[in-house]
Amino acid sequence: MVPWGGFMETSGDLVLGVDVGGTKTAYGYVDGSGKCLGSGVMATDSQFPVGHFFRRLHENAAALLSSLGPGHALAGIGFAAPDANYFTGTIESPANLKWDFVDITGEMGRYCAVPIATTNDANAVAIGEMLFGAAKGMRDFIAITLGTGVGSGVVVNGEVVYGADGMAGELGHLPVTTHSGRECGCGLLGCLETYASATGMTRTATELMATRRAPSALRSIPFDQLTSKLLFEHARKGDALALEAFAITGRILGSKLADMVLFTRPEAIILFGGLAGAGELIFNPTRQAMDENLPKAFKGKVALLPSGVMGTEAAILGAGALIWNELRKRGGSTVPFRGVEPTI
Amino acid sequence: MVPWGGFMETSGDLVLGVDVGGTKTAYGYVDGSGKCLGSGVMATDSQFPVGHFFRRLHENAAALLSSLGPGHALAGIGFAAPDANYFTGTIESPANLKWDFVDITGEMGRYCAVPIATTNDANAVAIGEMLFGAAKGMRDFIAITLGTGVGSGVVVNGEVVYGADGMAGELGHLPVTTHSGRECGCGLLGCLETYASATGMTRTATELMATRRAPSALRSIPFDQLTSKLLFEHARKGDALALEAFAITGRILGSKLADMVLFTRPEAIILFGGLAGAGELIFNPTRQAMDENLPKAFKGKVALLPSGVMGTEAAILGAGALIWNELRKRGGSTVPFRGVEPTI
Repeated sequence: MVPWGGFMETSGDLVLGVDVGGTKTAYGYVDGSGKCLGSGVMATDSQFPVGHFFRRLHENAAALLSSLGPGHALAGIGFAAPDANYFTGTIESPANLKWDFVDITGEMGRYCAVPIATTNDANAVAIGEMLFGAAKGMRDFIAITLGTGVGSGVVVNGEVVYGADGMAGELGHLPVTTHSGRECGCGLLGCLETYASATGMTRTATELMATRRAPSALRSIPFDQLTSKLLFEHARKGDALALEAFAITGRILGSKLADMVLFTRPEAIILFGGLAGAGELIFNPTRQAMDENLPKAFKGKVALLPSGVMGTEAAILGAGALIWNELRKRGGSTVPFRGVEPTI
Repeated sequence: MVPWGGFMETSGDLVLGVDVGGTKTAYGYVDGSGKCLGSGVMATDSQFPVGHFFRRLHENAAALLSSLGPGHALAGIGFAAPDANYFTGTIESPANLKWDFVDITGEMGRYCAVPIATTNDANAVAIGEMLFGAAKGMRDFIAITLGTGVGSGVVVNGEVVYGADGMAGELGHLPVTTHSGRECGCGLLGCLETYASATGMTRTATELMATRRAPSALRSIPFDQLTSKLLFEHARKGDALALEAFAITGRILGSKLADMVLFTRPEAIILFGGLAGAGELIFNPTRQAMDENLPKAFKGKVALLPSGVMGTEAAILGAGALIWNELRKRGGSTVPFRGVEPTI
């Protein structure tokens, strides 16, 4: 394997941010100001051996770097992936990938001699917000990702909370009341994720079809075709069930955000992901429920903010921010870390 | 005012730890290994102006220092007090003191030119455990105090989590299911504190008298004379209601400890205070419920430990550990900090 242009540099002006998803992987080059200079998407194809993935990623990213013209050099690579562990640079038993175990640092390190850092999606989002988004300048905040699941990145004193084994910040599995009721992918019942994720909201809308008598266009859509996007469209048209689904989702989310405030007393909680794009439909009930569920000394003190890095490149920016943050912490990009011992 | 012996030293072998309580204040001298060389107790008497309190504390502590013999010098003073704020060194609207506002750093600073640090009881307990107790060598753990209330000190990366305004870590106000049911002193309903504190357990025992038909010696004790100590004594004798009160309290506590594990994935959770002294009566159901309420990836990974600084001097050790920790962070005791500008 031959490292591609720039990857042998010990300092550089760009980082590669890689967001590994269940079906697609997005990658792109991010400069120190959070600008994405170029990006691409490839199939993850986790049915093939993991080595294939990293070879294709290498080829695609190298071609993309060349296309950006001369004068660029790579400072490091950041990976955001579900179930990824910051301490080990690995993914273990990922829920949505067919690989059992992925040694990201080792696999990628075959192709380059730059620092590599890895963490889960939500932590990458949090660092993206801190460096380039809504949490710029904040030292204590929490990022909540509302997607197919509910993820969280908790920042305390300017550092992501990783805990004793790198797996801290799984707030999507807080119990809404008790661990009962809706089945969650984690094996428990009634987790926040079963209510406040995009799919959670469709479960709520479906329950409402059974509970309420109000007519609704949603009643003609089968469960497996119901999406949060459809709910949003119908809510904007005034559909009563869709509106109530947003209100319930916000109330439940807000009550659990209150629990989070008691924990770290953040300056702000930032909502990221598709559902957060529904604006005040979700923010209003969430903000209200958060305050209602807090002791007096905490009420009204924590801002609830939309992401500052929304858009298709947000995930790439988060992964890029992860490695920029590591490079900054270490005072430069010349020192490989976390086991990056390239075999080239 | 004349500073007392040793207080003008810029380095020293002892710190003064002060635990301010609603009725009594305990103080004592703690060396760098966590040994308490001498201690005393005085009435807090918050019905008198706050200046009286600090004058008496000064006199008592100075006399105590003299009694320890020559060769000692004071390195700093640590205060643990309810509702105390680490960032400001003050107490605002304390629940169990008659003073509205106490500028601890300013008041104490009149009498001495050593560093002074202040935090709430539970944070002081956490630092005490980290330096001298069950959390020695740990960087991620949570200390839970089970007393008349439920307090918490959260440590992440070796640092107490203070949050944006110094008030983080109020886990006694997590909702047991939702904020409904039992009235809490904070203005909300159904907080953990209303179940898992010493008084919370007596509320549970009282509810059981109404729910169950089993005979119990507890039925002859009026509510306002029921204590967790009495419940412990009767549980050890096999009283069915007392035993069930412990089981319920542990189950509820454990379910909320699971929430805390999702947040910071600590190495251990440490239980401190009277209720924790009940041993396996409380630890068994707590440990079991904690594991039952965690996703698979977290089960069995977090130790549940009794305090390592139990005893009458634990509060003084915690307050002393607070200031030792500050002195260590700053690489010595020669630099006053946090606004300690003595007026002498």
